[in-house]
Amino acid sequence: MSIQTPDWVKHAVFYQIFPDRFAMSQKQQQQRSALTRLEPWDAPPTYWGYKGGDLWGVIENLDYLQDLGINAVYFTPIFQSASNHRYHTHDYYQVDPILGGNEAFKALLDAVHERGMKLVLDGVFNHSSRGFFFFHDVLENGASSPWVDWFHIKGWPLSPYDDTLPANYGAWAGLRALPEFNHHNPHVREYLMQIAEYWIKQGIDGWRLDVPAEIRVPGFWQEFRDRVKAINPNAYIVGEIWLDARQWLDGTQFDGVMNYLFAAPTIAFTAGDRVDVSLVEGRSYYPYPAISASEYAQKMQQVLQLYPWEIQLTQLNLLDSHDTSRLVSIAQGDWDSLKLATLLLLTFPGAPSIYYGDEVGLAGGIDPDCRRGFPPEADWNLEILEWHRELIKLRHKYTALRIGDYRVLSAKGGVYVFSRNWENETLIIAINAGTEPEKANFEVEGFARNNSINLLFGEAKVKFENSENSLSLEIDLLPRSGAILSF
Amino acid sequence: MSIQTPDWVKHAVFYQIFPDRFAMSQKQQQQRSALTRLEPWDAPPTYWGYKGGDLWGVIENLDYLQDLGINAVYFTPIFQSASNHRYHTHDYYQVDPILGGNEAFKALLDAVHERGMKLVLDGVFNHSSRGFFFFHDVLENGASSPWVDWFHIKGWPLSPYDDTLPANYGAWAGLRALPEFNHHNPHVREYLMQIAEYWIKQGIDGWRLDVPAEIRVPGFWQEFRDRVKAINPNAYIVGEIWLDARQWLDGTQFDGVMNYLFAAPTIAFTAGDRVDVSLVEGRSYYPYPAISASEYAQKMQQVLQLYPWEIQLTQLNLLDSHDTSRLVSIAQGDWDSLKLATLLLLTFPGAPSIYYGDEVGLAGGIDPDCRRGFPPEADWNLEILEWHRELIKLRHKYTALRIGDYRVLSAKGGVYVFSRNWENETLIIAINAGTEPEKANFEVEGFARNNSINLLFGEAKVKFENSENSLSLEIDLLPRSGAILSF
Repeated sequence: MSIQTPDWVKHAVFYQIFPDRFAMSQKQQQQRSALTRLEPWDAPPTYWGYKGGDLWGVIENLDYLQDLGINAVYFTPIFQSASNHRYHTHDYYQVDPILGGNEAFKALLDAVHERGMKLVLDGVFNHSSRGFFFFHDVLENGASSPWVDWFHIKGWPLSPYDDTLPANYGAWAGLRALPEFNHHNPHVREYLMQIAEYWIKQGIDGWRLDVPAEIRVPGFWQEFRDRVKAINPNAYIVGEIWLDARQWLDGTQFDGVMNYLFAAPTIAFTAGDRVDVSLVEGRSYYPYPAISASEYAQKMQQVLQLYPWEIQLTQLNLLDSHDTSRLVSIAQGDWDSLKLATLLLLTFPGAPSIYYGDEVGLAGGIDPDCRRGFPPEADWNLEILEWHRELIKLRHKYTALRIGDYRVLSAKGGVYVFSRNWENETLIIAINAGTEPEKANFEVEGFARNNSINLLFGEAKVKFENSENSLSLEIDLLPRSGAILSF
Repeated sequence: MSIQTPDWVKHAVFYQIFPDRFAMSQKQQQQRSALTRLEPWDAPPTYWGYKGGDLWGVIENLDYLQDLGINAVYFTPIFQSASNHRYHTHDYYQVDPILGGNEAFKALLDAVHERGMKLVLDGVFNHSSRGFFFFHDVLENGASSPWVDWFHIKGWPLSPYDDTLPANYGAWAGLRALPEFNHHNPHVREYLMQIAEYWIKQGIDGWRLDVPAEIRVPGFWQEFRDRVKAINPNAYIVGEIWLDARQWLDGTQFDGVMNYLFAAPTIAFTAGDRVDVSLVEGRSYYPYPAISASEYAQKMQQVLQLYPWEIQLTQLNLLDSHDTSRLVSIAQGDWDSLKLATLLLLTFPGAPSIYYGDEVGLAGGIDPDCRRGFPPEADWNLEILEWHRELIKLRHKYTALRIGDYRVLSAKGGVYVFSRNWENETLIIAINAGTEPEKANFEVEGFARNNSINLLFGEAKVKFENSENSLSLEIDLLPRSGAILSF
């Protein structure tokens, strides 16, 4: 079987939206009297408070996203849920009322599609919430509930809220708020499959899957893929797997994963010793200690060898997310780290995903701090925004940046150079992560021979010499800088 | 302002269905593997168990109901709820999945309307459930929830399930399972009004309102009526008020109430000393001690004087319900009590409502026992069924029984005689609740003079004599018998 992944993803630039924090619509602002307890938009996020971002607000900002070059949006959960992150679902068929409900979602989906953009939703199929109807029934009726076998009940009584008593049910990470489904029950599986099908039929372009490794029932994700793709063969299925994802990336399950295996070395290389370890330790990724260009090259080649190329092109690459500190905070405010990492993100095979606000320099530590309200324009870092805009533009312009071969050309000290090649289009990307000016000298074979080299982005001085079989290059880079060259 | 109530109700014979117990469809029976913990249909009902009756099952039995003469069905709650009685709503916009969900309801509503029948739903707007989304959000997020003001929060933390701690929120009858809405909050009121409107727009023919006296915010029920009637002027609004309901029956709120003021004296008169007080005491009605015919006459005249005639004709008259013991059990198995009371029910002004199963002699004590599974045909009391069928047929045949004047003609000892008159149609109903044969002698004025009297129903010997200004009647009744006469 040859592996098939959706073509559009290979050409997508994603934007990840945490809906409570991206934008509050005019409508929502008028209705604040109905939601008197919303937290102030600019106050530090808390575990329990809502800020009132909504999907109407996203619609109002689609111009902004499109102008930035975004052509796909991935939302953290939007279904009715009694938490600001909405990871414990109360009803899989209802969009949260604060977000504007199903009505706002339909309007959003239409608006996104009218612009030729794509929309991916976050599916939380491992666990539900204490208020989820079927679990709630077990809380109310105990052993008499028809839905007992939908969960992992270990004894009676259940203790959903009082943590001085045993919960007596299986819960994700032991959190009582997140009762886990019993995926061995075929009725549960069918229930979940129908949710997946329903929203694909409504027109969404794919599912991001929350903690899919927790669902270990053989065949679950294969059936999920088969049923989703039967409705929309181009639907994107991307799993939240932080480490080696080979068992899910065999072509029968996911099209890609959240590529933290890209994120971590990229941070360790570009931010290096600037990384505030307290903001990244104890997570499932390792953006520390600092690594050299050659170590980075090794890591990138490892990750590229891990999965088939067709999968690589539909990985969801990222630098940070709602589950991590933001890069600028990890790098303790060092903007160059963010710039260099973003340059690597936008030139890597697979779909880049920009976590809302990163493009304007929004900071934030581990959650909930990484989920701040999108800042007002006065607080934007316009240099960072322009950096993103230009890189996205180049990615859209050059096919090689999206689906071209990836080849490490040089990796010494702080300097990392690689090429992306597609038919006659060759781009070279060079980064100096070090604090001194550096020069990269290397020869490459097999490139198309041109007589000129163009600097497409960034700063670099380049000398080159064509010989019969190879090209000899010398690239001078200032400290903490990078460039994209074409020739 | 003249009081307007829906004409169709004046001509309706209702059937009250407790959906978990009326009928399990073929479909549901096949799907029992998905609902492994359903209680056996014929086992005594419990507080916590489901039997799996569903709306597809109701559809399968519409022939039966229509054949019985039923032309309106009132359902106890059908919305998604984690209880077999479904009085604590989890989602007001979803019909419970065990009942077949919104799909089954739509099919039912269509099928009912195709037969020219009506359908009324039970609206529980005073309280919701612990799993109801907005309350669940308060449980999850505490004081940070945007929905705190939707309920009566008295302190933190809330204790929804552990009754060794104060609940810290207002709950109906102090039951933690039933958190009460804060109806002073205009957003709550709007939320509830929209539910009422939504289902009327879906095509239901009315709302039976659960514990409406608990909602004391001025204007609430007036607005409810106005908004419901704006969509369907013929929608029926009937409140669960057990005693004097004058404050709600002024024409600006309800069209009628559950007429326990009819039920209680009717039981006290027909069952008399047979009443098992342990099955009726401590409720909000008083079908004991035994009363004589004259006391019964007094009670009936009291209740008829309490409200305008237009309201009387759209009262919901009943003998028992899901909230009371069944009459045959109250009467300790005395079938005559049921027969005589049913005769009174079917000849009283206002819409009679037969609680599912009463017509085949289903027994049951206080709840949950009064909510048994509808019996298989082999267990039906066919005499009782025929008694119901004939009386319903007569009610449909004679306008006087539905909207004619009610006039007590005689009430002595155990014998109660009254007439129903409409234009030239006069019916006389006579009951001997006593255990000895009795004779009623009386004169009446103002009746149309006919030369013959017909026995339409039951047994009686009648002599009559016309004089110039009056009619002299003598009716011989066997013990514990009744009759309907026309002349």
